[in-house]
Amino acid sequence: MSTAPACLGHSRAAITPALRAAVDRLDHRSRHQAAYHFGWITAGGAPTRADAGKAVRPALALLSAEAVGASPETALPGAVAVELVHNFSLVHDDLMDGDEERRHKRTVWKLWGSSSAILTGDALLTLAQEVLLDAGTPAAASAARLLARTTRHLIRGQVQDLSFERRPYVTVDECLDMAADKTGALLSASSAIGAVLAGAPAATVDALARYGDEMGRAFQLTDDVLGIWGDPAVTGKPVYSDLRARKKSLPVSHALQQGGTHGVELATWLSAPGEPGEEELRRAAELIDGAGGRDWALAEAARRMKLAEDALLGVDLEAGARGELLALGRFVVDRDV
Amino acid sequence: MSTAPACLGHSRAAITPALRAAVDRLDHRSRHQAAYHFGWITAGGAPTRADAGKAVRPALALLSAEAVGASPETALPGAVAVELVHNFSLVHDDLMDGDEERRHKRTVWKLWGSSSAILTGDALLTLAQEVLLDAGTPAAASAARLLARTTRHLIRGQVQDLSFERRPYVTVDECLDMAADKTGALLSASSAIGAVLAGAPAATVDALARYGDEMGRAFQLTDDVLGIWGDPAVTGKPVYSDLRARKKSLPVSHALQQGGTHGVELATWLSAPGEPGEEELRRAAELIDGAGGRDWALAEAARRMKLAEDALLGVDLEAGARGELLALGRFVVDRDV
Repeated sequence: MSTAPACLGHSRAAITPALRAAVDRLDHRSRHQAAYHFGWITAGGAPTRADAGKAVRPALALLSAEAVGASPETALPGAVAVELVHNFSLVHDDLMDGDEERRHKRTVWKLWGSSSAILTGDALLTLAQEVLLDAGTPAAASAARLLARTTRHLIRGQVQDLSFERRPYVTVDECLDMAADKTGALLSASSAIGAVLAGAPAATVDALARYGDEMGRAFQLTDDVLGIWGDPAVTGKPVYSDLRARKKSLPVSHALQQGGTHGVELATWLSAPGEPGEEELRRAAELIDGAGGRDWALAEAARRMKLAEDALLGVDLEAGARGELLALGRFVVDRDV
Repeated sequence: MSTAPACLGHSRAAITPALRAAVDRLDHRSRHQAAYHFGWITAGGAPTRADAGKAVRPALALLSAEAVGASPETALPGAVAVELVHNFSLVHDDLMDGDEERRHKRTVWKLWGSSSAILTGDALLTLAQEVLLDAGTPAAASAARLLARTTRHLIRGQVQDLSFERRPYVTVDECLDMAADKTGALLSASSAIGAVLAGAPAATVDALARYGDEMGRAFQLTDDVLGIWGDPAVTGKPVYSDLRARKKSLPVSHALQQGGTHGVELATWLSAPGEPGEEELRRAAELIDGAGGRDWALAEAARRMKLAEDALLGVDLEAGARGELLALGRFVVDRDV
């Protein structure tokens, strides 16, 4: 079994030619901006060493074909398509969230304006469907259908996420549903799409989809803990980063739902205006911890990861690929918390 | 043969239940905003009398199935899908173009902000694919592939259109290519998608696609003439509307390309800053006319419409549906010029 980072590097190398060929179909502006976003060229157009993020989703897609005994090539259009959908959502979300940097570079909207980001995102989304449907098989059509449904969930997750900012209170269930849509849906589709393209039985496809879905929830729970208590040296974000934005993340929602003196003080703090000071941030983190938000989130992440792994272990899969899928899931979810 | 307006009303009635059922799948915010955009509810959510534009594209889709001897029901997912793609592009274009009103109502971005318009557009685009792929047949997958490729062209057309605003000069060919992508591509797909869903032979599908493609060019040529010389009482827009925006439309591009004293004076005027006065507008229209821009555009529209009709008459089609397709094309293109 290769280690997860090696598996990611391998997948990246396997899909990049097909991904680049797909992006080459776009009009010259969308192609340029997409190539920049993927890290293939500078903003001015000079070639760079490829660095397009970890490519977790394509790796899951390729492994999901191997897990049902098919070649990774079977999953190639699916691996490219999930990466295109993921990047469609990043380009649009960066604009909506006003994020000026991604992977230490200026975002598409920041460099070329909002219309460019809208059009480049639209182009990546429709390209994902085209890449799959060009395969022309019934299995590819099933995969395209899965991807369309998944994209609907992805969009719903972003709608929910933006609406939470305007609300004083969000329940844990709402927060988990949002994470399932915004993070879990595409990880789920990625984990299943290779098996769909390989024509695997529905029960196997469902188990793989469940694996990605629960992994996505576990990832979000862990990520939300890191967003409050993560070591800046590891996360690359400022300490208490989610609290600075008074974000109603999962540990916060849990603490609010517990009520009590901690919960009430936290609710008051969340609705306060202005930029919070360092002492306030420390106190807010203490309140969330005191109400059990941190312990609950970590325990829930572990429980979800167990459900994910049980799903994968409950069906007949090729042992090597299953091992790599499990390692990849652990790599995604288990970071220094 | 029914008249074109009757045919449009009939198509609108035939597709609305399926279109509403599709929109009902969306998250509550996208659903609300889409329902408002389609004219089914007020911004506050009260039901209204349905008024969602002319629905030319669904009408073409239904007729294209009938033209190859299939029932209009065969084309229903295609008719819904092309209408969804058309409205995806309207919602995003309104935001990019800063248009505050459509069909005498405030636009989605104007009412709910840019993020809402981005997400509602994204949701309509992915829903179009889902509606088609849910049919689960090989023909539906072919139709979905056609629609994905078409959407790529639609996006390229909008990219070109925006880039023209920043350029001092646009050739007639560039302008026609842009119109083919932005207007022709979806009319072409709409005219062919019913036949694709009915499993018609490639030559028949190609002829129907050609019909919509050339009709789209003819429509744009006519629309551009109306954008300069159209009667405000008929177009609903102010006189010289395209000239007020110094838009490099087709008659303008032709006049510039002719050069001569008219062309040179026109080029100077186009690059001038500020809001043009009434006398300036009258003079610009005179220059375009003097350089032959108006006559050329009308002759080219007629030539394109003849090519469209020849394509339709060159293959074996059901006579009644062919007649309705021809009448619909004339209705779309031949307005008071």
